[in-house]
Amino acid sequence: MGIKLTILGCHAATPRKDAFPTAQLLEIKNRSFLIDCGEGTQTLLRNHKVPFVKIKHIFISHLHGDHFFGLIGLISTFSLLDRKNDLHVYGPKGIKEVITLQLKLSKSWTSFSLYFHELESKESELIYEDKKVQIYTLPLDHRIYTNGFLFKEKIGERRLNMEAIGQYPEIDICDYHNLKNGKDFTAAEGTTVLKNKLLTLAPKKALSYAFCSDTAYKPSIAPLIKNTDLLYHEATFLEDKKELASITKHSTAKEAALIAKEAKVNKLILGHYSSRYNDIEKFKEEAAPIFENVCLARSGKVFEIKS
Amino acid sequence: MGIKLTILGCHAATPRKDAFPTAQLLEIKNRSFLIDCGEGTQTLLRNHKVPFVKIKHIFISHLHGDHFFGLIGLISTFSLLDRKNDLHVYGPKGIKEVITLQLKLSKSWTSFSLYFHELESKESELIYEDKKVQIYTLPLDHRIYTNGFLFKEKIGERRLNMEAIGQYPEIDICDYHNLKNGKDFTAAEGTTVLKNKLLTLAPKKALSYAFCSDTAYKPSIAPLIKNTDLLYHEATFLEDKKELASITKHSTAKEAALIAKEAKVNKLILGHYSSRYNDIEKFKEEAAPIFENVCLARSGKVFEIKS
Repeated sequence: MGIKLTILGCHAATPRKDAFPTAQLLEIKNRSFLIDCGEGTQTLLRNHKVPFVKIKHIFISHLHGDHFFGLIGLISTFSLLDRKNDLHVYGPKGIKEVITLQLKLSKSWTSFSLYFHELESKESELIYEDKKVQIYTLPLDHRIYTNGFLFKEKIGERRLNMEAIGQYPEIDICDYHNLKNGKDFTAAEGTTVLKNKLLTLAPKKALSYAFCSDTAYKPSIAPLIKNTDLLYHEATFLEDKKELASITKHSTAKEAALIAKEAKVNKLILGHYSSRYNDIEKFKEEAAPIFENVCLARSGKVFEIKS
Repeated sequence: MGIKLTILGCHAATPRKDAFPTAQLLEIKNRSFLIDCGEGTQTLLRNHKVPFVKIKHIFISHLHGDHFFGLIGLISTFSLLDRKNDLHVYGPKGIKEVITLQLKLSKSWTSFSLYFHELESKESELIYEDKKVQIYTLPLDHRIYTNGFLFKEKIGERRLNMEAIGQYPEIDICDYHNLKNGKDFTAAEGTTVLKNKLLTLAPKKALSYAFCSDTAYKPSIAPLIKNTDLLYHEATFLEDKKELASITKHSTAKEAALIAKEAKVNKLILGHYSSRYNDIEKFKEEAAPIFENVCLARSGKVFEIKS
């Protein structure tokens, strides 16, 4: 178990040969979350053999084309394939209107229930929660209303210390459930009491992934993503285009590294490269002196973190 | 000179690896017309090295996704590239709302003037005309309002018969313009009169191309495309799925051939193949006994007709 992040597309602006706009698939606790959906995402999902049916939740950061023009096509394809599973779309206010208008014009109603969760808040908010995962928005600073997303595993059960348990034949397999839930062991007659910590180990570390694109340098997001295991932060430009980054409300590789350092994340992934740069290695070179554990997003690249 | 048709995408429904939805580029009389614009069309245009700036008119047959989901991305890319040339989009009523809504939501106004020509008529109508070309709608029979398009060269000037002209030294180069326009030659003093037909040849044949997708079998379109040089007619199914073709308002390869035969066109191109068929050669096999000069559309294939 752990977190598996597949980069589908990681380039800025227009799709080009071998340079696809933003889309990522996050697999966490057996759930598959699609993050952003630039034009051509459905083809990339097919190329990477991702079963469409596994995707039940889609998170759209903002309504610039390179982050959502592929959504209507993906939804239409789900319908053509006669999908029955519910689909939940989280994104800025307006996303429902634009998708439903296109479905209406094509008289193509979905074969499944489609739920929109429109976002408007400028504060971080919990937008998804189930038994094992929580997802929060990360308000970003871009030309239009934009959110990043923080995906967090919940802390799981305590793990059985089988070596310790083996020393107490009075502990039955039926007791394991209570032990995992942190309860002390009490024998049936109420005499033997063994402290839970004697028989169990701490739960596995709860992992987390933060997606931050698109955004100007915004140090105030650092506390929200403190100690995150994996951070994707946009780096559209290098410092040589710092002014352009500021005007267009994007970040440089150095600025992404400063956020990673401030937030004390474990690993930083850069992406959303401007087409101005032929050699994306330069992004890593600029970030590494500030934050050493930095990687470059590339289409098809998979990042895994084991818990 | 002549007509050059580049097939960008020619498959039905969802984009798949090496199976792109409908988009074609027609070059006629030095004009470049884009016909339909499925998801990924901008990438196909780039792959085929089509200069974006040459495209000034886009014709959308109908608002099913596999014919227009690529339009918003293409328009956005034109803007990102700081296009200045006007762009004209012809398509069913509703196309303006869906494109402008997306531009509004992304706060991405175009860098160029964008004109929509919304179509509603159920009769064939002239929708474009300049000195050399006319374009008519071809009302089709599909699940939603759909037009095909007929692109016609206008008959050009008469061609100079230089051999004949050479026999008359009194004919000056300044007289050529009048001769090309069909006027007789009269010497300055008004004495010599030479009939135009003695000095010129008939104009080159005016070529035409008809695009018919998507549509159920509709024999009433045959008179509208009579003697067309090149006809693209959808063939989503083979006769083995005739009932499905009827329900979904698509054609079989045989039906497309019947239209081509009835209209006495010169050449038929089939396309819009359903993903149910692995071997598209079968479409040609089904059509050929009825209409021999039949070809299969394939992505990247170019059809040229010389005048």
